[in-house]
Amino acid sequence: MSVHQATCTAPVNIAVVKYWGKRDTSLILPTNDSLSVTLDQDHLRTVTSARADESFGTVDAGSLQDRLWLNGQEETIKPGGRLDACLAELRRLRAEREKADPSLPPLSRWALRLCSENNFPTAAGLASSASGFAALAVTVAELYGLSETLSRSELSKIARRGSGSACRSVFGGFVAWDMGQQDNGDDSLAVPVAEREHWPDLHVLICVVNDGKKGTSSTSGMQRTVETSPLLQHRIQHVVPERMQRMRDAIQQRDFGAFTDLTTADSNNFHACCLDTAPPIFYMNDTSRAIVHVIEELNRARRDSGEDPIAAYTFDAGPNAVLYVREKDMSTVLGVVCHYFPDASFDDPFQLQVSAGLPALPPSFRTDIVPVHPSGSVRRLIHTRVGDGPRVLEHGCGAHSLLNEQGLPLRS
Amino acid sequence: MSVHQATCTAPVNIAVVKYWGKRDTSLILPTNDSLSVTLDQDHLRTVTSARADESFGTVDAGSLQDRLWLNGQEETIKPGGRLDACLAELRRLRAEREKADPSLPPLSRWALRLCSENNFPTAAGLASSASGFAALAVTVAELYGLSETLSRSELSKIARRGSGSACRSVFGGFVAWDMGQQDNGDDSLAVPVAEREHWPDLHVLICVVNDGKKGTSSTSGMQRTVETSPLLQHRIQHVVPERMQRMRDAIQQRDFGAFTDLTTADSNNFHACCLDTAPPIFYMNDTSRAIVHVIEELNRARRDSGEDPIAAYTFDAGPNAVLYVREKDMSTVLGVVCHYFPDASFDDPFQLQVSAGLPALPPSFRTDIVPVHPSGSVRRLIHTRVGDGPRVLEHGCGAHSLLNEQGLPLRS
Repeated sequence: MSVHQATCTAPVNIAVVKYWGKRDTSLILPTNDSLSVTLDQDHLRTVTSARADESFGTVDAGSLQDRLWLNGQEETIKPGGRLDACLAELRRLRAEREKADPSLPPLSRWALRLCSENNFPTAAGLASSASGFAALAVTVAELYGLSETLSRSELSKIARRGSGSACRSVFGGFVAWDMGQQDNGDDSLAVPVAEREHWPDLHVLICVVNDGKKGTSSTSGMQRTVETSPLLQHRIQHVVPERMQRMRDAIQQRDFGAFTDLTTADSNNFHACCLDTAPPIFYMNDTSRAIVHVIEELNRARRDSGEDPIAAYTFDAGPNAVLYVREKDMSTVLGVVCHYFPDASFDDPFQLQVSAGLPALPPSFRTDIVPVHPSGSVRRLIHTRVGDGPRVLEHGCGAHSLLNEQGLPLRS
Repeated sequence: MSVHQATCTAPVNIAVVKYWGKRDTSLILPTNDSLSVTLDQDHLRTVTSARADESFGTVDAGSLQDRLWLNGQEETIKPGGRLDACLAELRRLRAEREKADPSLPPLSRWALRLCSENNFPTAAGLASSASGFAALAVTVAELYGLSETLSRSELSKIARRGSGSACRSVFGGFVAWDMGQQDNGDDSLAVPVAEREHWPDLHVLICVVNDGKKGTSSTSGMQRTVETSPLLQHRIQHVVPERMQRMRDAIQQRDFGAFTDLTTADSNNFHACCLDTAPPIFYMNDTSRAIVHVIEELNRARRDSGEDPIAAYTFDAGPNAVLYVREKDMSTVLGVVCHYFPDASFDDPFQLQVSAGLPALPPSFRTDIVPVHPSGSVRRLIHTRVGDGPRVLEHGCGAHSLLNEQGLPLRS
């Protein structure tokens, strides 16, 4: 008897033109286009194993009892919820295939066991829903044999039902999410803008900022912005459409100066709309702002010396900074960040070492732009780079499986 | 020989629809209307004495040598600068009067001595340019005998040339600054919206926030916003015009709920535009944001109990919160602020006492909305209320004069 199982990975993505606001909260249709950079799965990824088996329960025996374990903890799959919506759509497509080819095993009629693990700790402060739902969609599509007939953009629509930004994690490199126009969401999907190989020296430094406060969830926050912010309407109608085109151009031309200006402007524009919400939403804190001051001053001093800027910052729905830096400049940026925000936990896969004191900097750099912060204000640094799209690790229950032979998590 | 001198006071004003951006930086013509509440001069004010004397120098003897002392320090009057522009316009109006009535002493041909003092310390964190330039314009107009023929709105245009928001300090109560349309600024002036007596129980609590950082000056900051923020254009064209009308209505109707919603929304909208600037401008810090969280939660809990909100917050170009609170609610707001931000310096002219612990609050108030902050996070509290317009204290060199008989500062 063969085991019907697949194991795949999917990457994290960080938007440089932000998604904020839904025009349809059930189908997860956004109010504007967005564009992201995929991070390298060698460093940050979700791995998911999905198995279908008659012994797990069948449609004929009553309602299906799919089960999911996330980082070792079993989660409840809420009927009609986002996960359920993704699985229902994948199952529907599988059922169509089974109808067309009755020789196929009736996987669509069997319950699923799903096991998913992030290789980055929750403490990394990264949203895991994008890589998580992308890995889920890719893995179940692989299990169901849909990958030959279902394009990645089609698959992105299914991932989107789980978490909007997950649709961008079904591709590698630079990825756009076209908001689409249709009410049923059929044209709201991810499309590749450029492969990772197009701009391979684009590296990323994630600065995980210490923050004791409870944040506002992005799901509830973005709808409050849609309902109350007059500025968001301007962002949606005027700012983003123009910025998307300029961002595509900057990426095509590997124009780091333009990429930096657009990325920082869009991060600030997004947080401005959060602040314009009633009641206002604040994701950046004083440490986030100090990082902005340092990077802006670095960029100013570089431009003052006739050079390109050195780093683009962007902030998602939290206080952590994500910096885009070219490989050649990373040791400088790292040295500066570690000087002003000392004692961050850091284990660099690229083996960069941080020396004490500031690195060589352009002469006009004002070293007193912010004070040296208390130890641990930035509590962790993660160095990665632009990466590829989801990977199929194996079919069947082999060395990569997260499920044991009985269909239970190997680790818990 | 009579002394040609006048001494007047002018109040501080705090905008509830903010001024941010000039369409003409020389004439100080704004990009949008604004509206402010005048604070009580019994607590916060600038006093100015102005004297003209032939012995100080005359036009006939060469260039005029006006002199100015500000809080005891002599300041340089820059030719062609803002102060010079105000004085030149007042002198021109005086010269017209002298031409029409040759019996008048030729004050326009004599140098001026000006002495100005704020009764609030710089440590109060309040901008003194509004009350300062309003006091200057009113006092010199009084000295020159212009007050009978020059309306207060006409005078506001002269104060505007010194500092935009100063034009609103020539009236008491609730004051609008009409941006005007003319290129020469002739219709960009202040007009009264309502007298203080219209809403006398509107009290004010200024929370002076501890902040080690250098800020961005509002003069340079606002022009950077004009040049780089796409959201500011939307604010100017759509948000403020509608909000001005609603704010006038809220004040006319003494509708504290609407007043609160509009005031907080406009403060947040203004700071959102600062954040949307390249590089971004941050005036609020983590303590400012914690004050916002506490006040928003208080207002939510009050509304949850079927009551009006309790306080409207607004932030100018700095981290300090200004809270508008009705007199009956001030002890509650004060108790809450002192609980979460302990040990602020406070000497209440209204004799309110702060007890230990939280006052009685609506049942749904979540006490853990922010932690109790470190001692001195808010370092000073100032309790005042809506106030009247500039006051003429005396003509001649009497008990109120800041200048001695020789035309030098009494205090230095």
